[in-house]
Amino acid sequence: MSTVRRLVHPNPSRILRTQDRPLSCPLTTEIGLTNYSRQAETVRLDSIEPTECLSYLTAESVSWIDIQGLGREDLLQELGDVLNLHPQLLEDIANVPQRPRFEDYDDQLLMICRMVKANDEANGFDRQQVSLVLGANYVLVIQEALDYDSCFNKVGERIRRNKGTMRKQGADYLLYCLLDVIISGFFPVLEDYGERLEELENEVVRDPCRHTLERIYQMKRELLMLRRSIWPQRDAIDRLMREESPLICNEVRVNLRDCYNHAVQAIDMVETYREIASSLMEVYLSSMSKRMNENIRFLTVFSTIFLPLTFIVGIYGMNFEFMPELKWKWGYPVLWLIMLSITGCLLFYFYRKGWLVQAQSDK
Amino acid sequence: MSTVRRLVHPNPSRILRTQDRPLSCPLTTEIGLTNYSRQAETVRLDSIEPTECLSYLTAESVSWIDIQGLGREDLLQELGDVLNLHPQLLEDIANVPQRPRFEDYDDQLLMICRMVKANDEANGFDRQQVSLVLGANYVLVIQEALDYDSCFNKVGERIRRNKGTMRKQGADYLLYCLLDVIISGFFPVLEDYGERLEELENEVVRDPCRHTLERIYQMKRELLMLRRSIWPQRDAIDRLMREESPLICNEVRVNLRDCYNHAVQAIDMVETYREIASSLMEVYLSSMSKRMNENIRFLTVFSTIFLPLTFIVGIYGMNFEFMPELKWKWGYPVLWLIMLSITGCLLFYFYRKGWLVQAQSDK
Amino acid sequence: MSTVRRLVHPNPSRILRTQDRPLSCPLTTEIGLTNYSRQAETVRLDSIEPTECLSYLTAESVSWIDIQGLGREDLLQELGDVLNLHPQLLEDIANVPQRPRFEDYDDQLLMICRMVKANDEANGFDRQQVSLVLGANYVLVIQEALDYDSCFNKVGERIRRNKGTMRKQGADYLLYCLLDVIISGFFPVLEDYGERLEELENEVVRDPCRHTLERIYQMKRELLMLRRSIWPQRDAIDRLMREESPLICNEVRVNLRDCYNHAVQAIDMVETYREIASSLMEVYLSSMSKRMNENIRFLTVFSTIFLPLTFIVGIYGMNFEFMPELKWKWGYPVLWLIMLSITGCLLFYFYRKGWLVQAQSDK
Amino acid sequence: MSTVRRLVHPNPSRILRTQDRPLSCPLTTEIGLTNYSRQAETVRLDSIEPTECLSYLTAESVSWIDIQGLGREDLLQELGDVLNLHPQLLEDIANVPQRPRFEDYDDQLLMICRMVKANDEANGFDRQQVSLVLGANYVLVIQEALDYDSCFNKVGERIRRNKGTMRKQGADYLLYCLLDVIISGFFPVLEDYGERLEELENEVVRDPCRHTLERIYQMKRELLMLRRSIWPQRDAIDRLMREESPLICNEVRVNLRDCYNHAVQAIDMVETYREIASSLMEVYLSSMSKRMNENIRFLTVFSTIFLPLTFIVGIYGMNFEFMPELKWKWGYPVLWLIMLSITGCLLFYFYRKGWLVQAQSDK
Amino acid sequence: MSTVRRLVHPNPSRILRTQDRPLSCPLTTEIGLTNYSRQAETVRLDSIEPTECLSYLTAESVSWIDIQGLGREDLLQELGDVLNLHPQLLEDIANVPQRPRFEDYDDQLLMICRMVKANDEANGFDRQQVSLVLGANYVLVIQEALDYDSCFNKVGERIRRNKGTMRKQGADYLLYCLLDVIISGFFPVLEDYGERLEELENEVVRDPCRHTLERIYQMKRELLMLRRSIWPQRDAIDRLMREESPLICNEVRVNLRDCYNHAVQAIDMVETYREIASSLMEVYLSSMSKRMNENIRFLTVFSTIFLPLTFIVGIYGMNFEFMPELKWKWGYPVLWLIMLSITGCLLFYFYRKGWLVQAQSDK
Repeated sequence: MSTVRRLVHPNPSRILRTQDRPLSCPLTTEIGLTNYSRQAETVRLDSIEPTECLSYLTAESVSWIDIQGLGREDLLQELGDVLNLHPQLLEDIANVPQRPRFEDYDDQLLMICRMVKANDEANGFDRQQVSLVLGANYVLVIQEALDYDSCFNKVGERIRRNKGTMRKQGADYLLYCLLDVIISGFFPVLEDYGERLEELENEVVRDPCRHTLERIYQMKRELLMLRRSIWPQRDAIDRLMREESPLICNEVRVNLRDCYNHAVQAIDMVETYREIASSLMEVYLSSMSKRMNENIRFLTVFSTIFLPLTFIVGIYGMNFEFMPELKWKWGYPVLWLIMLSITGCLLFYFYRKGWLVQAQSDK
Repeated sequence: MSTVRRLVHPNPSRILRTQDRPLSCPLTTEIGLTNYSRQAETVRLDSIEPTECLSYLTAESVSWIDIQGLGREDLLQELGDVLNLHPQLLEDIANVPQRPRFEDYDDQLLMICRMVKANDEANGFDRQQVSLVLGANYVLVIQEALDYDSCFNKVGERIRRNKGTMRKQGADYLLYCLLDVIISGFFPVLEDYGERLEELENEVVRDPCRHTLERIYQMKRELLMLRRSIWPQRDAIDRLMREESPLICNEVRVNLRDCYNHAVQAIDMVETYREIASSLMEVYLSSMSKRMNENIRFLTVFSTIFLPLTFIVGIYGMNFEFMPELKWKWGYPVLWLIMLSITGCLLFYFYRKGWLVQAQSDK
Repeated sequence: MSTVRRLVHPNPSRILRTQDRPLSCPLTTEIGLTNYSRQAETVRLDSIEPTECLSYLTAESVSWIDIQGLGREDLLQELGDVLNLHPQLLEDIANVPQRPRFEDYDDQLLMICRMVKANDEANGFDRQQVSLVLGANYVLVIQEALDYDSCFNKVGERIRRNKGTMRKQGADYLLYCLLDVIISGFFPVLEDYGERLEELENEVVRDPCRHTLERIYQMKRELLMLRRSIWPQRDAIDRLMREESPLICNEVRVNLRDCYNHAVQAIDMVETYREIASSLMEVYLSSMSKRMNENIRFLTVFSTIFLPLTFIVGIYGMNFEFMPELKWKWGYPVLWLIMLSITGCLLFYFYRKGWLVQAQSDK
Repeated sequence: MSTVRRLVHPNPSRILRTQDRPLSCPLTTEIGLTNYSRQAETVRLDSIEPTECLSYLTAESVSWIDIQGLGREDLLQELGDVLNLHPQLLEDIANVPQRPRFEDYDDQLLMICRMVKANDEANGFDRQQVSLVLGANYVLVIQEALDYDSCFNKVGERIRRNKGTMRKQGADYLLYCLLDVIISGFFPVLEDYGERLEELENEVVRDPCRHTLERIYQMKRELLMLRRSIWPQRDAIDRLMREESPLICNEVRVNLRDCYNHAVQAIDMVETYREIASSLMEVYLSSMSKRMNENIRFLTVFSTIFLPLTFIVGIYGMNFEFMPELKWKWGYPVLWLIMLSITGCLLFYFYRKGWLVQAQSDK
Repeated sequence: MSTVRRLVHPNPSRILRTQDRPLSCPLTTEIGLTNYSRQAETVRLDSIEPTECLSYLTAESVSWIDIQGLGREDLLQELGDVLNLHPQLLEDIANVPQRPRFEDYDDQLLMICRMVKANDEANGFDRQQVSLVLGANYVLVIQEALDYDSCFNKVGERIRRNKGTMRKQGADYLLYCLLDVIISGFFPVLEDYGERLEELENEVVRDPCRHTLERIYQMKRELLMLRRSIWPQRDAIDRLMREESPLICNEVRVNLRDCYNHAVQAIDMVETYREIASSLMEVYLSSMSKRMNENIRFLTVFSTIFLPLTFIVGIYGMNFEFMPELKWKWGYPVLWLIMLSITGCLLFYFYRKGWLVQAQSDK
């Protein structure tokens, strides 16, 4: 009987129009296995059945079972029986999205993570849930989506080439390596956001256009999502580090501390970017206000000069019979002189007020 | 003597114009009972007297007593005597609204919860207080309102159909299932808010109308209420989980941890929505400011072009006797040329400033 | 020798123009006593001398000594000698205002509270300091002001009528009852604020007038004061509850937990109201901005229509000798047609921009 | 060899234009001594040499050594040798400004405090560092500046007049008295700020002038400084209170709790004032916005009335030969009627919109 | 085999346009050594090979090994072998930037710090990572950049001149001295910011120009970076202080407490500056709003005066045949009187409203 219950939690990321969704949510489930030990040849199997894993689960070697796609519940259930997984653990794995966290099921340790990947076309990032289960001699990795270009490939490569101390260590070290790859994956995404922030800064200060506001808002919301992904991960690593489980040796604990520090560094960057984005919003508002001021000043200068002039020419457009000025020979030129001097005075006044200069420099 | 004292606490939700009130606050009290065990047939009784429960309260079976409506204090008091409830516990149950919390009365554990339900007509959510009392072999559920379409029905259904491990477990597992249903009930409501936020976003960025502001404010206030409902619930579940009461077995504690994680996830979503709503308010303010700027620019461009023209035609409307220009044959057409060139220069100036384009594109 | 030193602390509430001050700060001190036990008749004495209390302070009965007014230090000092109060305790009692808090003086427990009472005339609330001292068989209640309509009267009434379990319990239960009455007193005041907030909401959204801003500000400041009163009280009750003093029995501790929960609920409400008031300020600012926009739009529409028209009529007011149009027979009606069509075009343009509609609907 | 190293820390208060600096930073160092005991006469010595203290440092009496001015390092060093002070302690004392804090050097306890004093001329407050060192039978008080009108004089007076229990107690009680005087010194300053806030409130709501903004900003900054002075002091007293040093007896610990409560009360007031000042800034911004709105409305009403009128008189200023209206006998009076009715309609329209009233009432 | 893996973390400071970068990121690695003891001569070696250190690492003397530049991994690796450093420690040192923190590797203690230095030309500050490793008899200092003018030179000078108690103490005291120099280095930078803030204040209040906004924003962002540097350093020192490692003696712990206090003081100043900068942004926004108001008022006063005048002269420019006023002999002078009185009335009205004065005083 299947105990894998699929909760229909709403997808909190649906309100996002950015492309921070898994690459593809397949209806299949692909199981792969990498088995290695200090002496023996590294074995790599693709698209296997759950039961095929059994023969590799020995105390002498480390098995890395990777699952891509959550489409076939029966396979997950079967694997759960093979690996003797706790029903609750199986439920946690099968239902996405879950909040990143750490759970200790005595025989297995479960880390639920969020993996991000910069997506240059969409100008955002892809995001998928990755669950890591650490058992006695194996690590089970469950990815939400099919992801042939996964950043886990680098770890696989390292095992195959027997690079570093990889093969000499146990399953806990493999877990650390995978976690480290996940956390390190946040930095290129953050790098992207750093560059976009810098562009936005220039845009706001130099040349705010009608889409600047939307871009700042979009930036703020995406950083909020990024923060929601990385923040609980830090707590999870912290708890994993402090867990007094026999599954993790002290050596690896030192490594996990490093991983934890990277998570803290990523959080630091997200928070800094968020504060900068908030400041940018303020600067944008201020610069809008400054522009409006300049527009109004322009209107004021123009109106203030032409209002008295128009009044004056209106006077001599009147049809009174007894207006001596109209008869004077020099009336017209004298009036021009008066109007020019009024304009001159006003311009001088505005110049001293500094309005003329600033109205000019607004381009 | 009745010790059920009804405090007349003000209703904090009265200032809400949204429909987050109980469906109906009845003056009656309906008591139902569901009794099940591993072997025996499941019994379901409706509208019973408190004393009828007594015969079902055996160590071999689990009784689920559900009360809808707090109208009749005498029935509550009687049931309190039957189940031997602590007077303070009875008082907590009978008085609404209480803050969600957990209380340990040694023989009974009390969870006061807030249950929400999306209400599409009112574009809001219904809210009611649900108290769960866990005794030795029973769970007592007290709902503030008559609610025939309660989400607890699903749990009842599961018991009746003997689905899952429900019947094999004790009263503590029933408590977990009910709590899980309550917490899960927050997600559809949050889903609704996510969609409304997305609509608001489009509205603010594309086409802010006169009601946009009110809608953002309304949204912020309802999220505040939602947060007030879910936040203390998390603490209550946490305390329930850690309580060293013999009434809860370790198996169920693992399940409760899952329930706790869902509550944290719901809080996460509420907080994210609240931050997005705050940002939206800022964006709305900015876009108001941008619009005002465009209006002022429009006025400025128009005024600046017509002010000098009106002045010029005013000049030649003057009645001076000695104005040579008026006598020139080509005076009138030349003046038109002058005015057209002034207009042209100004338009070119505004075009280079970029005002013309933006004033145009504002539609 | 008197050790009652009167500190001249500045009165932090002086900057408040609201009527949150004691009803009257009398120069007298009135001492009353209520003595009750399970069997004997309840005794009530008014305006007694401190020494008269002595005969009632027996282990078999509970004495409730109440003091109103801090005017006569000598009486306080005398009572301190009679009850054997700690000098520091006496000093804390005699000096107002003190921050609400709990102090343990081994033989006596001191709770300093802030009692509020809605004041409908002043549209605010009265506030006074109440100190509760729990001794072996007595509770000493010191009110800052004469307050004949005190909410403690209800507790006195309950004792006299022998209602509930009042008389069967000790002095610690009396302390709980008085505390409960003080905390419950916050709810009607909060209820008032809830209603005023709702009115303000309508005002801001529908019809913000020149006093709306002041009212929101006033509201925010009063809620700040209310929060300052209730917040430390919660901590004080929490500490009282956890204090391992033999003066409080376990039964009463359960009751105090209830009292603590009410305080938390009151804080919750104050915080919610404060957040709503802050949002209201933002909405007010936005609606001011919206109105300004509409005014400017109105001006723009009007100016933009009349500026070209005035220019055109200015042209034909010129006195050039050679202006063929002036001689045409249909010149004048044709000009009217031209002006009407210009007006029509502009109106159509504004209509499509949506300015006309919104300018209209602003009433 | 001198170990008194003088660090050249930047002075964080330099950016303050307020007079919150020491009265005078002298280049001298004045040492005084007050010696008292239960029986003997109180001795007061001024301007003594460090070595002169030695004879008074007996177990039977309490010595209060006070230093004003940090000008002469050699004297400080000498005194350090006489009293056997820890080199680090000496360094902490000699370097200003230090953050208020508590340090335990086993044989001596060090409290670094910030003493404030209202300065009415400067409309701000003076601030100086005071270090208190509690030794076996002495308290060493180091003031940064010469301050003949110090608030410590009151304590000296109390000792001389043998008022209260002063002389019967040890050096720890003297330390408490001095600390109490320092903390109490914050209240008159806060009182001043409370009054200035109230004035600002009236100014903002009634009649905001061009300096209101600067005043609010100044107020906010000074409160920030005040908060920076009092906040760490609370922690220092808390740590002093909890320190398990034999230098402080339990009796005095009870007194220190009182002192701690005063510090908390002062912090409460500062925080409240800061929140009120922030609200005032918002209200000021809103009232600026309101005023601008009224100005624009005034301009709109005026323009909207005169624009059509000016257009109409422009029409009949045209020189068309065939304008029948010009020939009509009643043309001129009828035009006046038309113009008056247009004005009337517009005024009625504005009146119904409510613009007329508000524009009027703005004075 | 090299275990020094170089992670390619993005550089979070890239978005900064300020010059807060290392002076030069060299491709070389320079190793220096200073060896001193109580009796022997101080030895100073420059540009040595890692193995040359070996002979100086004796229990009788303290070795200070300083590395500038991280260019040559092989040298770092070699030194790691010589000093027997933990591989993870070596990795932390070699990869920049790391978050400031403390790590305990049993045989070595690692402090990662951020050192800042005012850079007057760039109007900002230089920043580089410094790692301090405390071993049994040595301190290893790794600076990211070549820095011949390092502030560590002062410490070297003190050792050479045998000033203070430097030579009599162990490696832990050297670590304290270096930490103290790093923390003290923050104060001159903060001093600079204090002065720039003061200038900005004057600018905002007196004469906000078009670059003021950018300057405030820049200031806020740099303070954010400064805060990110100093904040984790405080935690690191705190953890170092509390670490129960035999490598640090109690004497030095007292000194570290002083260092910790300086870090807290620096944080205090950064936070204060940040709050002031935020207030400045608000003041700037308000002053923009005030200016706009004054511009609009100016326009309103001018328009309101000339609109009716222009209308009046328009009236008498009409060509009606029957306009009796035109024929009156005193028509023209009377009209002048009327116009002057209208102007007078309006000016008086504006004067009483206070608009005239404020519009005047805006310069």
